[in-house]
Amino acid sequence: MTTVLLNISGSIFQTTFETLEKIPSTKLSFLKQDFSVKSSPASFYFDRNPDVFNYILDLYRTGELHFPSNICGATIRNELEFWEIDKCYLSECCLKAFYKHESDMSILKEIKNLEKYKVLDVPIEECRKGCWRNCIWKTVQYPASSRRASLFNIFYLLVVVLSTSLLFLNTLPDLRRPKSDHFNETSAVEKEHIYTKTTAAPPVFYVDLFCGIFFTLEYITRIVVTPIKWRKFFCTSLNIVDGVAILSFWVLCSLIIHQPDFIDDKAFSYVIMILYSARLLQLCRFYRFLNRFKSFDVINLAVRASICQFGILIAVFILSNLFFGYLIYYVEFEDKNSFNNAFIGVWWAVVTMTTVGYGDVVPTCYLGRVVGMVCALTGILILAMPVAIVTSNFTIYYNKLKEYTNHKHKKERKNETRFNLKKAKENGSVSPVSVLTVETIVSHTHHQNGSKS
Amino acid sequence: MTTVLLNISGSIFQTTFETLEKIPSTKLSFLKQDFSVKSSPASFYFDRNPDVFNYILDLYRTGELHFPSNICGATIRNELEFWEIDKCYLSECCLKAFYKHESDMSILKEIKNLEKYKVLDVPIEECRKGCWRNCIWKTVQYPASSRRASLFNIFYLLVVVLSTSLLFLNTLPDLRRPKSDHFNETSAVEKEHIYTKTTAAPPVFYVDLFCGIFFTLEYITRIVVTPIKWRKFFCTSLNIVDGVAILSFWVLCSLIIHQPDFIDDKAFSYVIMILYSARLLQLCRFYRFLNRFKSFDVINLAVRASICQFGILIAVFILSNLFFGYLIYYVEFEDKNSFNNAFIGVWWAVVTMTTVGYGDVVPTCYLGRVVGMVCALTGILILAMPVAIVTSNFTIYYNKLKEYTNHKHKKERKNETRFNLKKAKENGSVSPVSVLTVETIVSHTHHQNGSKS
Amino acid sequence: MTTVLLNISGSIFQTTFETLEKIPSTKLSFLKQDFSVKSSPASFYFDRNPDVFNYILDLYRTGELHFPSNICGATIRNELEFWEIDKCYLSECCLKAFYKHESDMSILKEIKNLEKYKVLDVPIEECRKGCWRNCIWKTVQYPASSRRASLFNIFYLLVVVLSTSLLFLNTLPDLRRPKSDHFNETSAVEKEHIYTKTTAAPPVFYVDLFCGIFFTLEYITRIVVTPIKWRKFFCTSLNIVDGVAILSFWVLCSLIIHQPDFIDDKAFSYVIMILYSARLLQLCRFYRFLNRFKSFDVINLAVRASICQFGILIAVFILSNLFFGYLIYYVEFEDKNSFNNAFIGVWWAVVTMTTVGYGDVVPTCYLGRVVGMVCALTGILILAMPVAIVTSNFTIYYNKLKEYTNHKHKKERKNETRFNLKKAKENGSVSPVSVLTVETIVSHTHHQNGSKS
Amino acid sequence: MTTVLLNISGSIFQTTFETLEKIPSTKLSFLKQDFSVKSSPASFYFDRNPDVFNYILDLYRTGELHFPSNICGATIRNELEFWEIDKCYLSECCLKAFYKHESDMSILKEIKNLEKYKVLDVPIEECRKGCWRNCIWKTVQYPASSRRASLFNIFYLLVVVLSTSLLFLNTLPDLRRPKSDHFNETSAVEKEHIYTKTTAAPPVFYVDLFCGIFFTLEYITRIVVTPIKWRKFFCTSLNIVDGVAILSFWVLCSLIIHQPDFIDDKAFSYVIMILYSARLLQLCRFYRFLNRFKSFDVINLAVRASICQFGILIAVFILSNLFFGYLIYYVEFEDKNSFNNAFIGVWWAVVTMTTVGYGDVVPTCYLGRVVGMVCALTGILILAMPVAIVTSNFTIYYNKLKEYTNHKHKKERKNETRFNLKKAKENGSVSPVSVLTVETIVSHTHHQNGSKS
Repeated sequence: MTTVLLNISGSIFQTTFETLEKIPSTKLSFLKQDFSVKSSPASFYFDRNPDVFNYILDLYRTGELHFPSNICGATIRNELEFWEIDKCYLSECCLKAFYKHESDMSILKEIKNLEKYKVLDVPIEECRKGCWRNCIWKTVQYPASSRRASLFNIFYLLVVVLSTSLLFLNTLPDLRRPKSDHFNETSAVEKEHIYTKTTAAPPVFYVDLFCGIFFTLEYITRIVVTPIKWRKFFCTSLNIVDGVAILSFWVLCSLIIHQPDFIDDKAFSYVIMILYSARLLQLCRFYRFLNRFKSFDVINLAVRASICQFGILIAVFILSNLFFGYLIYYVEFEDKNSFNNAFIGVWWAVVTMTTVGYGDVVPTCYLGRVVGMVCALTGILILAMPVAIVTSNFTIYYNKLKEYTNHKHKKERKNETRFNLKKAKENGSVSPVSVLTVETIVSHTHHQNGSKS
Repeated sequence: MTTVLLNISGSIFQTTFETLEKIPSTKLSFLKQDFSVKSSPASFYFDRNPDVFNYILDLYRTGELHFPSNICGATIRNELEFWEIDKCYLSECCLKAFYKHESDMSILKEIKNLEKYKVLDVPIEECRKGCWRNCIWKTVQYPASSRRASLFNIFYLLVVVLSTSLLFLNTLPDLRRPKSDHFNETSAVEKEHIYTKTTAAPPVFYVDLFCGIFFTLEYITRIVVTPIKWRKFFCTSLNIVDGVAILSFWVLCSLIIHQPDFIDDKAFSYVIMILYSARLLQLCRFYRFLNRFKSFDVINLAVRASICQFGILIAVFILSNLFFGYLIYYVEFEDKNSFNNAFIGVWWAVVTMTTVGYGDVVPTCYLGRVVGMVCALTGILILAMPVAIVTSNFTIYYNKLKEYTNHKHKKERKNETRFNLKKAKENGSVSPVSVLTVETIVSHTHHQNGSKS
Repeated sequence: MTTVLLNISGSIFQTTFETLEKIPSTKLSFLKQDFSVKSSPASFYFDRNPDVFNYILDLYRTGELHFPSNICGATIRNELEFWEIDKCYLSECCLKAFYKHESDMSILKEIKNLEKYKVLDVPIEECRKGCWRNCIWKTVQYPASSRRASLFNIFYLLVVVLSTSLLFLNTLPDLRRPKSDHFNETSAVEKEHIYTKTTAAPPVFYVDLFCGIFFTLEYITRIVVTPIKWRKFFCTSLNIVDGVAILSFWVLCSLIIHQPDFIDDKAFSYVIMILYSARLLQLCRFYRFLNRFKSFDVINLAVRASICQFGILIAVFILSNLFFGYLIYYVEFEDKNSFNNAFIGVWWAVVTMTTVGYGDVVPTCYLGRVVGMVCALTGILILAMPVAIVTSNFTIYYNKLKEYTNHKHKKERKNETRFNLKKAKENGSVSPVSVLTVETIVSHTHHQNGSKS
Repeated sequence: MTTVLLNISGSIFQTTFETLEKIPSTKLSFLKQDFSVKSSPASFYFDRNPDVFNYILDLYRTGELHFPSNICGATIRNELEFWEIDKCYLSECCLKAFYKHESDMSILKEIKNLEKYKVLDVPIEECRKGCWRNCIWKTVQYPASSRRASLFNIFYLLVVVLSTSLLFLNTLPDLRRPKSDHFNETSAVEKEHIYTKTTAAPPVFYVDLFCGIFFTLEYITRIVVTPIKWRKFFCTSLNIVDGVAILSFWVLCSLIIHQPDFIDDKAFSYVIMILYSARLLQLCRFYRFLNRFKSFDVINLAVRASICQFGILIAVFILSNLFFGYLIYYVEFEDKNSFNNAFIGVWWAVVTMTTVGYGDVVPTCYLGRVVGMVCALTGILILAMPVAIVTSNFTIYYNKLKEYTNHKHKKERKNETRFNLKKAKENGSVSPVSVLTVETIVSHTHHQNGSKS
C-alpha cells in the first residue's frame, strides 16, 4: 500500500493508491500511472476546493458519493467535472441539492425571459428613427416615458373604467327607453325582449359612443405609428382582442340604429347578445396596467408552471364529478322533484365538491346524504392539491423574483461601493508583519531545503 | 495526560488519551491499548472524512454528539459505524438529518417500486415468443410501442368518451321513447317509471350497442392474446372492474329487450338501476390514460402515504358530526319543520363542517346559531389538517420524483459526457510544475528523514 | 503586534493579541495576561472544535458573531460557554439556528411528557400487588395486555357503537310508540310532544337498557378494582364524563317509566331533552380507542400549542362578525323580510365569513352585496391564519414524533448492531502501515527535536 | 507560474499568481504588484475566515462565485468587502442566502419599530413631571403599571362589552317601546319605522346613557391629563374614532329625546341609522386590549407586508368577477326570474368564487352551469394565493418575533450566566501541558530556525 499525499490547494490529504483505484477511470485512479518513479510517498498538487474534495475522497473510501446539502449544485458539478467522476455515482439521497440548482436556474431563466420580452416589446432603437410617429408611439405605449405619456395613460384608464361601467349599466332595465315603434306598449319589458323593444337611454348611448370612438382612434393611431411590422402587430393576442372588441362595438351600433328586416326578433336578440358579450373582451385593456406590477408576472408564471399538474387534477376532478353525479341520480331515484337526469347530478356534484353549495338540488334520502358527505370530502381533498401546487409555485417564483431584482439593483450601483485598493493598502490591512510571519512558518522550510540541495 | 495525534486522512487532530477514554467501548477508546510503546506523542492514521470526524471528536470532548444539519444521514451513519459509536449517543436535537435520510430513501423506494411495477406490467421478454398474439397484445396494451398502437388507443379513448356520454344522455327523458305496450299513455313519464315505461331512443341504443360490442371484443381479445397467466390476469382490479361493466351491459341489454314476467315493475326498475350504476364502473377505463402521467402517480402515492392520518381525522370528523348533529336536534327542539330527527342534525353538521351550506336545514333559534358557528369553525380546523397532510405529502413525492427522473435521464446519457482522461492530461490540468511544488513542501521532509535514518 | 498561534485540537490558527483583545472579558482576551514570558510567537492549545472556532474568531476579527445555519444550536451553546462569550454578541440574523434548537427541545419534551403520562396512567408495579383485582383492571384498561383484554375491548367498542346508534335511532318518530294514556290519539305526533306522548319501541328500549347496565357494571368494576386512589380516579375528566353519562341514563330511565305528577308536559319535555343531551357525553368513550393512535396525540398537541393564537384570531373573527353584522342591519334597513335585528346580521356574517352560505338571510340591495363581498373576503383571510397555524404546528409535532419513535426503536435494538471491536481490528481497519505513515509525517519531527534537545 | 502561499489565519492555501490575476482589480489580483522581490514562493498572511476563503478562491479557480447556503449573508458580505470582490460576481443560484439575510434584517427592523412605537406611545419621562395628572394618565393608559390601573382597565373592558351588547339589543323590536304620540297604534311596528315610532325601553336607555357618560368622562380625562401635545393626541386614529363614537352618541341622544320638526320621518330614520352605524366605531375600543398580545402585532405586520400583492389579487379577483358576472347574464338570458341585470351576475360571481354559495341566484341552463363550474374553480385558485401570501408572511413574522423576544429576555439575564474567568482558569481548562504540546509542534520549528539564522 503506497501512501499518496494530495495537496489540494494547500490542504494535505493522505491516502493510498489502493483506495484511489477503487473507482476506475477517474482522474485520481489514473494518478498511479503518472507516478512511475518509485520514490515514496507520491505527492500531487491540484488547485481545487479542499472542502468539497473531502467528500469526493469519501467516494474512494466508502464507495458512496454524498455531499452536504449546503454546497451549491454548481460547485458540486464543477468538482465532479474536474475529477472526472460521473454524475451517476451520486447517492440517491443527495440528489436534492444537485438538482435544486438546476430547477432554480430554469426558474431564473423564465424570469429573465419575461423581462427580456418586456424589453423587446419596447423597441427603443427603432423608436429613435422617426420623429412625430415615435413621439406618439411612446406616449401611447409607455406611461413611464414622459409626463404627457403618464397623463394620457391615466386618461385611457379612466375611459376604460367608464366604458366598462356603461357596459354593465346598459343591462339595467331602468336605464333603457322603449323603441319608437313600441312606444304605446306597457313600460315593463321582459328580460328577453330588452334588445328588441328597448334601446339605451340617450346619455348612456352618447357616452358609450364617445368611448367607442376614443378606442377606435387610439387603435388606428397605434396601427399607424407602430414601429413594429404590421404582421407582428396583429399577431399579438392583446391587439387581436382589442380589435374584436372595437369591431363588435361598431357592428352593434349600426344594428341598434337600424334593425335589419331580414332578421326576426329572436335571432336579432341573439346576435345582439353575442356582440355585447364580445364587447366584454375590452376587459383585457386592464391587462396593460396590471402588467406593470411584478406580482402579476409572478401569478402568470406560477399558473403557467402548474399547468400540467392542473390538467391531471382537473381530469380527476371531472371524473369524480361524473362518478358522484351519476351515482346520486340513481341513489335519489325515488325523488321526483330533483335530480331529473344525470347531468343535474353532475351539477350537484360540482356545487358540492367546490363547497359552493347553492342548495338548488339537495339529496333528500339518507343514502344520498352519505354520498353527499363523501362527495364533499373528496372535493375538498382533490381541490386542496392544485391550490397547494399553485401556492408553492407562487412562493418559489415570488422569492426568486425578489432576489433577482434586488441583485440587479445592486449591480447597477456597484461602481459606488467598489473599494479603492490603494487606499486600503495604506490603511495597512496587508501588514508587513503578517507577511513576515507566514514566511517564518512555511517558506523558511524551503529556504532551508534550498540551502541543502 | 498523554497527547495523541490523530492523522485523519492528512488532517491532524491533537487530543489526549484521557479525552478518548470518556466514551468507552468505541474504536477511539481502545486506541490506548494498542499503544503499548511508551514513545510520546502517540500517533494514529485513519483514512476517514476529517470534516465529520471533528463532530465525532466533540462527543469525546463534551459528551454530546451533534452533527451539522447539512451532512447527509448516510455519511453520518458510515462514520458512526466506522468509529463504532452507537446511534443512541446521537443528541435528540440532531435526529432530523439522520432520520430524514431514512424517510427520503423509503420514499424513493416507493417511487422505484411504482416504476418497477409498471415495467413488470409489460413483460417484454414473454412478448417476443409468439408472433401475431404479441403483436395484438402490444397494440392493445402499449400505446407507445408503435404508430398502430397509438392510433388504436386514441380510438379506444374516443369510444370510452362516447360510451360515457351515452350513459349520461340515456337519463334524459327527452331522449327516451315510450315502450310499445305503453304507446297510448301520455308522453310525460315520471322519473321512477322511466325504465319500465320508456326505452332508449333507437340511435342512442344502437350506438350504445356498438360501444358494448367493441369493449367486449377488446376484452376477449386481451384475454386470448395475454402473455400473462389467466389467474393473474383476472386478479388485476382493473380487469375485474372492466369485466363487471361488460357483464352488466349485456344483462341490461337482454332485460331491456325482453322484460321477464316473473318480476314486477318496481323490482324491475331497481334491477335496471343497479345494472346501470354498475356500468358506471367503465369510468375506470380512463385510468389507463391518466396512469401514463407522472403527476397522477404522485397523487396516488401522496394519498396512500396519508391514509392512516386520514383515518384518524375522518374518525374525529365523524365524532364531531355526531356530537353537533345530536346537539342541534335538541337545541332546535321547538322548531317543528326542520331537524325532525338526529340524523338530519348529522346531515346539517356535515353540510356545515365542510362549509358546503346548502341551506335545506338551517338553525333558527339563537342558541342553534351559536352551535352552528362553533360547528363551522370546528369543521374548518378539522378539515384543514388532512388537507395539509396530503398537500405536504404531495409536495414531497412530487419533488423526489422530479429529482429521480432527472437523475435517471442523466445516467442514460453518461457515456456522452464522460471525460477522456488522456485528452485532459494533454491539456495540462495535472501540471508538472504543480507536482514539483507539492514535493518541495511535504515529501522533501521525508527525503530528509529518509537520508537520516 | 505579537503573533499568537492557537492550536485548536490540532488545527493552527494564527492571529495577534491586538485582535484577541477587541472583545474584552472573554477567555481569549485574557490570554495575553497568561503569556508573561516574552518568547514570540505565543502558542496555546485548546481541545475544542476547530470548525466552530473559526466563526468565534470571526467575532474578534470583524466584531460580529455569525454562525453557519447548519451547526446545531447545542454545539454553538457549548462553544460560547467554553470561550466565555456572552449570547448577546450573537448577531440578530443568526438567532434562528440558536433558538430553533431550544424550541425543538421543548417540543420533544412535550412529546415525552405525553408518553410519560400514558405510562403513568398504567401503574404496572401497583398492578402486581393484588391478584384478581389487577387481573380485571388490566383486562378492562389495557387492550394490549392479553388476548382476553383485547377481546373485552372489542366487545366494549361494539357496545359503544350500538349504544350511540340507539341514541340516534331513538329520535326517529317511526321507532316510537304512543304512550298507553294517549293510545286513542292520532298516530302523527308533533316533534315537541315526542317525549310526553310517545315512548321508545320495546326492542330499542331493552337493547338500550342492556347497554346502560353494561356500562354501569363496567364503571362500578373499574371503581372497585382500580389501583389508583379514588380521589385521583374521580378527578380524571374521562371518568367524570363517563359517570355523568351513566347517571343521566338512569335518571332518564326512571323518568320515562314513571312520569311524575308534579311536573307539567312542557317542563318534563325539557328535562328529558337535557338528560338525553347529557347522554351524548358517552361519545367520549371513543376517546379511549382514538388515544391509542399517535396521529391523535399529534392533533392534540398541535391544537394545544396553537391555543393562544387561536384566542386572538377568534377575537378578531368575532369583532369582524359584530362589525359586519351590525353594518348589514343598517345597510339592509329597507328590507322588511330579512335582517330583522342586528343578531340576524351577525348570524349572516358568521355564515358568510366561514363561506358556509346557507342562504337563509341574504343581502338584497346593491350596497348590502358589496358589504357581503368584503365580508366573505375578510372571513377567508382571517380563517386562513388559524388554519395555517394549526397546520404548521401539526407538521412540526408530527415530524418530531416520527423521528423520536424511530430513534427509540433503534435504541432498543442497539445491542444487536454494536460492533465487536476485536473482530474489526483483526480485519485490519487500524492498519500498522497507516500508523507508520502518520509517524513519518508528524511525530518524526518530534524525534528529531528530541534528539536535538 | 509562480507559486503563492496564502496564510489565511493559520490555514495555508497554495495557488499561483496566474490564477489570482484572473479576476482583475481585487485585493488578491494586486498581490503580484506588492511582491516585487523575486524570492519564491511568495507568501502572504491575512487574518480572515479560512472556511469562507475557500469559496472566494473558487472564484479565481473556476470563475464562478458560489457560497454554501448555510453561511450567513452578513459573513459573506464582510468577506466580499475585505477581498474587494464586487457583489456582481456572485452566482445567480447563490443569491438566496445573500438576500435572505437582508430580508430577515428588514423584518427584524419592522418588529423593533413596532416595539419602539409602543414605547414612544408611553412617554415615561414626561410622565414623571406632573403628579396627579401622570398618576391618572398611567391608570387610564397602562394597565400593567399598577393594581389600580389593571382594575380600572378591567372595568373599562366590561363597560365596552356592556355598551356593545346594548347596541345590538337596541335593534330587537321586543325591547323597544312605542313613542308617546304613537301610543294608540298597533304594537307591531315595521322595521323601517322602528326609529320614528318606537324608542328604546327605559332600562336599556338608562344603562346606555351611563355607558355614554362613562366614555365621555374617560375621553375628557384623557385629553386633560395627556402628557402628549394635543395636536399629536388628536392625530392618533384611535382617538379620532373614539371621539366620533362619543359625538354620535350625544347627537343621537338629543335627537331621540326631541325629534325636530324640520325633518320628516323618512329622513329622520336615515339620520338615526347613520348615527347608530357611527356608534359601531366603538368596537375599536377592543383594539386597546388586543394590542397587548404579540400574535395581534404579528397579524398586523403580516397583513401590512402583503398589502401590495393583495392589491393585485383583489384586482384580478374583481376583473374575474366582472367577466363571469357579465358572461352569466348573457348565458342565462332566457331565464326571466334571475340574473335580471349584469350586476346580479357579478353578485352571483362573487358568491360563487368565494364558495359562499347562498343560492339566491343560481344558473339554470346547462351552459350557465358550465360557466358556474369554471367560475368556482377560478375563484378557489385566485383566493388560494392571497391566503398563501398572508399565511407565509404570518409564519415568517411569528417565528422572527419569537426568536427576537427569546433573545431579548436572554440578554437581560446575561449577567447571571456570565462565567468568571479566574475561577475557570483555576479549574485548569487552559492546561499547561496543552500549551507545551503546541510549542513542540509549531513554535519549535521557529526556535530551530531562530537558532540557525
